[in-house]
Amino acid sequence: MPVYKAPVRDHQFVRSEVFDFSTHYQSLPGFEEVTPDLTDAIIEELANFNEGMIAPLFQTSDKGCHFNNGEVTTPTGYKEAYQAFIDAGWPSIDGPAEYGGQGLPGSLNLLSNEFMASANMAFSMYPILSHGAVKTIFKHGNDDQKNRFLKKMISGEWTGTMCLTEPQCGTDLGLLKTKAIHQPDGTYKVTGTKIFISGGEQDLTENIVHIVLARLPDAPQGSKGISLFVVPKRLVNEDGVAGEPNAVSCGSIEHKMGINGCATCVLNFDGAVAYLVGEPNRGLNYMFTFMNEARLNTAMQGVCHAELSYQNSLAYAQDRLQMRSLSGAKSPDKPADPIIVHPDVRRMLLTQKAVAEGGRILGAYASLQLDISAYSEDELARKAANDALALLTPMAKAFLTELGLVSASLGIQCLGGHGFIKEWGLEQNYRDARISTLYEGTTGIQSLDFLGRKIMGSGGKLLKPFTKEIHKFCEEHIDVQDLNKYAATLNDYNVRWSEITAHVGSLAVQNPDEIGAAGYDYTMFSGYVSLAYMWALAAKAAQKAQSQDNEDKEFYETKLRTAKFYYERMLPQADTHAKLAMSGLDNLLQPDCSPFEL
Amino acid sequence: MPVYKAPVRDHQFVRSEVFDFSTHYQSLPGFEEVTPDLTDAIIEELANFNEGMIAPLFQTSDKGCHFNNGEVTTPTGYKEAYQAFIDAGWPSIDGPAEYGGQGLPGSLNLLSNEFMASANMAFSMYPILSHGAVKTIFKHGNDDQKNRFLKKMISGEWTGTMCLTEPQCGTDLGLLKTKAIHQPDGTYKVTGTKIFISGGEQDLTENIVHIVLARLPDAPQGSKGISLFVVPKRLVNEDGVAGEPNAVSCGSIEHKMGINGCATCVLNFDGAVAYLVGEPNRGLNYMFTFMNEARLNTAMQGVCHAELSYQNSLAYAQDRLQMRSLSGAKSPDKPADPIIVHPDVRRMLLTQKAVAEGGRILGAYASLQLDISAYSEDELARKAANDALALLTPMAKAFLTELGLVSASLGIQCLGGHGFIKEWGLEQNYRDARISTLYEGTTGIQSLDFLGRKIMGSGGKLLKPFTKEIHKFCEEHIDVQDLNKYAATLNDYNVRWSEITAHVGSLAVQNPDEIGAAGYDYTMFSGYVSLAYMWALAAKAAQKAQSQDNEDKEFYETKLRTAKFYYERMLPQADTHAKLAMSGLDNLLQPDCSPFEL
Repeated sequence: MPVYKAPVRDHQFVRSEVFDFSTHYQSLPGFEEVTPDLTDAIIEELANFNEGMIAPLFQTSDKGCHFNNGEVTTPTGYKEAYQAFIDAGWPSIDGPAEYGGQGLPGSLNLLSNEFMASANMAFSMYPILSHGAVKTIFKHGNDDQKNRFLKKMISGEWTGTMCLTEPQCGTDLGLLKTKAIHQPDGTYKVTGTKIFISGGEQDLTENIVHIVLARLPDAPQGSKGISLFVVPKRLVNEDGVAGEPNAVSCGSIEHKMGINGCATCVLNFDGAVAYLVGEPNRGLNYMFTFMNEARLNTAMQGVCHAELSYQNSLAYAQDRLQMRSLSGAKSPDKPADPIIVHPDVRRMLLTQKAVAEGGRILGAYASLQLDISAYSEDELARKAANDALALLTPMAKAFLTELGLVSASLGIQCLGGHGFIKEWGLEQNYRDARISTLYEGTTGIQSLDFLGRKIMGSGGKLLKPFTKEIHKFCEEHIDVQDLNKYAATLNDYNVRWSEITAHVGSLAVQNPDEIGAAGYDYTMFSGYVSLAYMWALAAKAAQKAQSQDNEDKEFYETKLRTAKFYYERMLPQADTHAKLAMSGLDNLLQPDCSPFEL
Repeated sequence: MPVYKAPVRDHQFVRSEVFDFSTHYQSLPGFEEVTPDLTDAIIEELANFNEGMIAPLFQTSDKGCHFNNGEVTTPTGYKEAYQAFIDAGWPSIDGPAEYGGQGLPGSLNLLSNEFMASANMAFSMYPILSHGAVKTIFKHGNDDQKNRFLKKMISGEWTGTMCLTEPQCGTDLGLLKTKAIHQPDGTYKVTGTKIFISGGEQDLTENIVHIVLARLPDAPQGSKGISLFVVPKRLVNEDGVAGEPNAVSCGSIEHKMGINGCATCVLNFDGAVAYLVGEPNRGLNYMFTFMNEARLNTAMQGVCHAELSYQNSLAYAQDRLQMRSLSGAKSPDKPADPIIVHPDVRRMLLTQKAVAEGGRILGAYASLQLDISAYSEDELARKAANDALALLTPMAKAFLTELGLVSASLGIQCLGGHGFIKEWGLEQNYRDARISTLYEGTTGIQSLDFLGRKIMGSGGKLLKPFTKEIHKFCEEHIDVQDLNKYAATLNDYNVRWSEITAHVGSLAVQNPDEIGAAGYDYTMFSGYVSLAYMWALAAKAAQKAQSQDNEDKEFYETKLRTAKFYYERMLPQADTHAKLAMSGLDNLLQPDCSPFEL
């Protein structure tokens, strides 16, 4: 059974030492009282809750949900844990006060999700998706819809889902077939089949609020003819009380590689009562509120998988005695040395650590933008934050989930044959992690969004503020002792980032397929450079603390060693990605080759 | 349900066009009648058998074995399939004729294992491990042992196992505790617990012959005090008839991530009757016969995982309609283009193809050495072949299984969310594949063996013949049209191989831990260069066939496109591995850091 200890100290380091969340909150209207004491207390409580209530259900989760005659039974213990989650008020942290939420900043919610998704990813999906449904209704719904649904969703009494995929359409929502017909009373009736609906049916709450994409009869073809609807499992009156069942039913659940505690449902809508959100045919735009939140949360899952993997493989490596160090016995009193003394085991542990801790900083960086975008009174600042999120979201989603997978696999590898055995839990962590590069848009799709829509689509304008910020950091630290080496290396990669962008841009003018040919490697290159920036920030903060003769010496020294490891052992991966990103379409699709063959 | 079609045409290409197996067989005593017609017929029959009998059990395999009161029940259909396997005579292909084998060359067996391990890896483990047990007894056992055990093992009526691991020792066999006590009748009694014994108990055969490592009472400590024993599940009289049960029992089976059709057993030996193989205390040396065979077979499993993954993700990519090509609709008559038109999907497909087909050539290359080492009458040739195998085995095991895993993961990725769903079978392929970098020595252990024992241990002498051979190829083809580009690139990497070796060697003189720090990346670098050599050989063969106006034009064109892909999109990975291999110990274990911490 794997252990999970929420990394409270590291969260504090990120919020108070790498960044200054306290000043950040002070600068946003309504958050003047969000002091470090308050946030520390919340994080501490969240740690206790997830370690005590959610992590123990990790292996039970894997036994999966059961489906019988339209009903889903979640794993043993889920109901009680979910009730405790509601009772403690966790679903409502950043919910708007007018609908019963606690009105705290969204950044706190994003960061705190990490604990639950590390403790038990399958369980965490119910509340995390629900949160996205809340935000979508809050942002795009009308007052009637907000009054009907939000209060019980924010309290956690009801959950929400995201219904996009159909058998014939996943990535390509333009192929969507689900129909919505207008009714005389102003509602709609939705008919169609949705698949892969996480939490589409469950036994945790009395109602489920589905956010559904469907087509009106007169809608334009393709993705410009999609509208967004709210479709509750049970009909809800204006005061938010659930009544009769709606015409939506769960047809089956999928048998999956992992996240088995989260029911992945086929949902059949058969003339279900639905409420149109916003304007007709603008559904995909509205859905991006949900999708962007889901993508950022998925990016953070990469951090979770690396963290859980790291904690457990580290413990194993310090405990398991096998072979002597090549440079002589390190534990001569024992029959062999603990395997952590072997350099290759250290390489695997440090990789996981660098992904978990560096990714956490990247998540925190994004969460600052999230707050500014949502709450700032400065329109220019809001726009800049929105732009930064538009850029970072697909990159972080692609890069952190890919490295989360690598980390989860290295965690298994540290355990040798034992890593393959279920009871250690690391193979489950990998299986749970495997979905993260697939759902909410595959890595390939994130790469097309990042390179094609965001970077090429803006003529490079979305990228510039970020590379400029990195450039500024490098300039300011190029002569600072012990930071200069990071600044110099980071600066080199940052310059190359622009060069590669220009190179791929010139290719893409000739053939747009060049974007697809470069996308994956370009995005991974960008991810490595961005994480190098995060590790430079961490090194700076750790050095500052050390120079102040801090008590927590070992914490900072390990941080500096991990920064060095990242720069010398992980960042060089970016070199190959750069080379491949510029290698062109020709080696993937040669002129003499049919695009339907290889 | 995944499909599997044995790559008969590609096998023929490798045996007859890349290499000249026919001449090779002619040169070995006793194999004059092994003509291309004969080998083609065998390969064809093997394909039919594995496609028809073994592949259909792929998903049933995943339901796993059942354990009850010491007895193991294999998945439904295994018994019948195993009986058909015996009836067809497949276990005995390369078994010595004096014990009822067909006396065909070992290379045929190694290559043909690929079909079964691709069709159903879990099933294939019973016969593949049994084959290693046969070879061990044949090579190191006395006449009595051969007469008692070999005939029924070669016929497949009995299987064999490899019992090394104990709870406290996996990699580090010096920690082994199982005891063997000499008996007045010349036999021994073995007592101890072995874990992770694949096929340690099953319901396929009336007897199981365990090859067991144990210690004699007066044995030296560590790995120099280990002896090898044959311990049958049921006692066997001198004529090879099985009788009473021996004192060995299965205590439980493991619950694993994959290969669930193969029972992984805890075996309790409780004074079991045992026969000493060879001299006392030389057991580890003898066991290397078994281990090297197992490692080479495991290397080939990397090919299998890539092949199965490739076939199924290719079929999906040609069928699944989603999005339009960025360069304009390729299937305008359909609602969307098949996803194979997207460059990033092609990248993922071509990677799998390059690993499967390139790895197959590397496997064939090794199998030639295997034959020479086993059958040649020329002592120098035997020694050279032995040396080549000593070098290639750990490298191929590490590199091909790591790339097999990458391929299996990319196969999932091509299917998007469907890749995560069990019914498609690709997640099972990944789960089955995950063991391959762990068992028979982890990637880290192979790397230490490769760089530490084989390369540094021989002062570079084992490496030289192989790099020389590559150098010769490059020299001979540097001016050959369309091959010159491969020759030039390959030559560069080959030169760097020697440089990196010298660099790491100089570091290792100062601190042996540098070998551990460099091992993984050095081995991966070596693997990429070796596979580049194989792809150059393939390109040469394909070009030759094309210039002869061959009918099979499309086959050769695809081969050449894949070679180009390998050189431009995969081989550059070697650059980063080179850099990391030379980056030193310091970023993994800094002087100020305790080796027990990070």
